[in-house]
Parts: sequence; C-alpha cells; structure tokens
Amino acid sequence: MSGKLYGIGVGPGDPELLTLKAVRLIGECDVIAYPAPADGTESMARKIAAPHIPANKTELAIETPMVPGQFPANDVYDRYAIEIGDHLNAGRDVAVLCEGDPFLYGSFMYLFGRLATSHDTDVIPGVSSLGACAARAGQPLVSRNQVLSVVPAPLDEADLEARIVTADAVAIMKVGRHLEKVRRVLAKLGRLDNAIYVERATLDDEKVMPLMNLDGDRAPYFSMILARRAEAVDA
Amino acid sequence: MSGKLYGIGVGPGDPELLTLKAVRLIGECDVIAYPAPADGTESMARKIAAPHIPANKTELAIETPMVPGQFPANDVYDRYAIEIGDHLNAGRDVAVLCEGDPFLYGSFMYLFGRLATSHDTDVIPGVSSLGACAARAGQPLVSRNQVLSVVPAPLDEADLEARIVTADAVAIMKVGRHLEKVRRVLAKLGRLDNAIYVERATLDDEKVMPLMNLDGDRAPYFSMILARRAEAVDA
Repeated sequence: MSGKLYGIGVGPGDPELLTLKAVRLIGECDVIAYPAPADGTESMARKIAAPHIPANKTELAIETPMVPGQFPANDVYDRYAIEIGDHLNAGRDVAVLCEGDPFLYGSFMYLFGRLATSHDTDVIPGVSSLGACAARAGQPLVSRNQVLSVVPAPLDEADLEARIVTADAVAIMKVGRHLEKVRRVLAKLGRLDNAIYVERATLDDEKVMPLMNLDGDRAPYFSMILARRAEAVDA
Repeated sequence: MSGKLYGIGVGPGDPELLTLKAVRLIGECDVIAYPAPADGTESMARKIAAPHIPANKTELAIETPMVPGQFPANDVYDRYAIEIGDHLNAGRDVAVLCEGDPFLYGSFMYLFGRLATSHDTDVIPGVSSLGACAARAGQPLVSRNQVLSVVPAPLDEADLEARIVTADAVAIMKVGRHLEKVRRVLAKLGRLDNAIYVERATLDDEKVMPLMNLDGDRAPYFSMILARRAEAVDA
C-alpha cells in the first residue's frame, strides 16, 4: 500500500506557532523532508519544527541551489520527486515541512505538481508570514471592504508601482536586495510614511520598525514591508 | 497589576488547526471572549476552539448585530472595549478568539484599536482562510513572482473588475449574496473556467468544486473563490 504525502506548513518561525495537526503528522510520518540550502547550512523549516521532530525519523534535505534572481531548476525538483515517490511507493508516509504556509510562495508546490496526481496527498495550511508580520507590527492587514495585494519585490519598478497603486494595503515580500527600489516606489506613491518593516517575524532576533528608520540598501530574504494607504488606517 | 489582552487566531475551522500557542494561552487566560451573532446562535470562533476551552473560564460573547451590507456600529465595540478593559484593569488576562487570522478582516481589530494603546496586548496569528482554502482546493495561491490580490466581493462591479484584472491570482472573500456579480466579472475577464469555489474549508461539511459547477445565486459568508490567470497555473 502506497504511503501518503503531506505538505505541512510549520509557520513563520516561532515553534509554538505550529498547529496541533502539524505536530501530530510530524510525529506520525516515516520520512521528514524539508528544503535546505545547498551549501549545507541549516534548513529554516527544519529549525522551526525541530522541537517536534522525533529522533528516530528518516530525514531528507531537499537541497536547492539558490542563485539570486533565479528560481531553482526543474531538474532539482524532478530528482527529489523521484526520491520522495520511492518512499511513498514503499508504503512510507512523507511529511514535507514548509516555512509559513505551503501554498503562499512555498517551494512545496513544485513537489505537489509532480506527485499529487499519482499519490495520495494532503496539504496542511500553516500560519503565514503575512499574518505573523501584521501581528508583530501591531497593524491590521485589511479590514471591512479593503483590498490587500501581496506583491513580490523582485518585480520591475514600473510593475511594482502599478500593483501597489491600486491596493488599499500591500504586503511586499522577498525584499532582499530590492529594498532601495521598494523605497523609491513607496515614496513616489506617498506610502513611505506609513510603511512598516518586519524582519524574521516571531523569531528571537525579530526586527520591527518604521521603514523610514531602516538603514542600508538590502534586507534579508525573510523580511516584509507592510504599507497601507494613509486613509485606510483604522480609527 | 493589569492583565494582558490577547487576540488569538483560532484558524479556519478544524480544531486541530489551532496553534500550540493558541491552545496554551486559551488554557492560561482568565477570560475567554469571542464574537457571536446577536441572535443567540453559536459563535463560530468558540466552536472551533471549544475542545481547548477549560470548563472553569469566565466567558464573554461579543454580540454584534449583523445587517447585510453594513458593518457593526462603533458603539457596540465601545461597549465591549469597556467591559474587556474592566477585566484587564482587575488583573485578569483576556483572550479574544478570532476566526482565521486576527488581522485579516478580523473584527478583533476594532477592539485592538480601542485597547492596545492603554493595555499590554499581543496578537497571536492563526491559520487564515486563504491558506486553508488553497490547501483544500489543492491549488497554490501564488508562486515565484506572482501577485495575489485579496478582494472582498461586496465591492461594486466596476471596482471588483479593476482589482481582479491586474492580479495574477485573486482570492475573493465574503462571497455571500454577491455570487452572481462575482460570476459576471470572472466571466468577463476569462477567469471563470479556472475558478474554484470553497465553502467552510477544513470543516466536516466543507464544499470544494469548480465555480462552474455551483448552482444558485448566493453562498454562505464563510466561502471563498480562488481564480488565477490561466497562464499563472503552475506546470
């Protein structure tokens, strides 16, 4: 009998923000897989879930070489889909740990696309970086009938501006080396004053500050900028 | 010494999708508050968290009269903010349970706006309906550098169209009696074929189907439509 594949959201960073379901399934699955840098440094998803991973599990690091401005090559996921498929075919349940929520910019979707049609698969939603950053910033994302746009910072400048101008509130993801560009766009649209910068939300070394107070021209990958129209801020 | 106010996301419906932190704080707080219909019917947030609420807690139903097309009156929240403030001033910790995530269209933000400046407050993010609906639909929300717009269905038709046309993927919330309007807009934009309807995600009576297969002209409040550009669907 074939095993089952689980894509499990482990939340934004605080190990206490795992769901009960994530903890139970991590305990029950035979194989625990997680994305990891190809340079052998620690997997963020594994680190978040570490307190809940029993010692006797088979672990599989899905090593994806990260080149700035590029997405991992298809052949990397082809290869890991075969390896995970072998576990499933041998009757082993496999949990793939995902930072935040599996289906919000999560790399799990590439494995899902390769395995879900041929294997029993369940996706377990997790606390996303969106809700976590808003919570830590102490600023609601959207209320009433406001529109929220979730916009990746790597978009080119004109595109970024066009996407932000129509939204009541924006969450700008994947800031990284695009910080200066994001600053320029927000300044042009009059949204710089209200923008909040959140780095490594819910982790011990979290940073939360007005974007105006942030020095430098780049930010880590795990950072987000929340910017609302001035008139969209709740009374 | 004053008590602490917690806004606690209890997730989309499955009680196993509460976070460990939500469960711990519900156990520790002295007062458990939750939004509830004014007609005495059951509170959704309380129902989700019910397996985790100890029997000895003081409970407070925040009864908000719901009139279609209107938001609850400010005086309702003024009144409950005073009642919760009294508990806090008496040294009692108060947990306000919130469906999904507290800061994504959650009514907790009205209490937060009234109490957070004067009382120690912490917001605990929860699994949002966004991630839950995508997980249950088996369809990623966004990947790579795609833009996601979260759009409330009550917007007028032209506005709804303008917000949807620029996004790679949209999550249309609060469908309710706006179903026909949403169908017209998606049809006009060529996005009806790919649209998925999700009702009461992760609950026992959940419904997931192509929007094309949904009969009728209205949907419950706890429903969502996910619609992506055809070319935005992952290979």
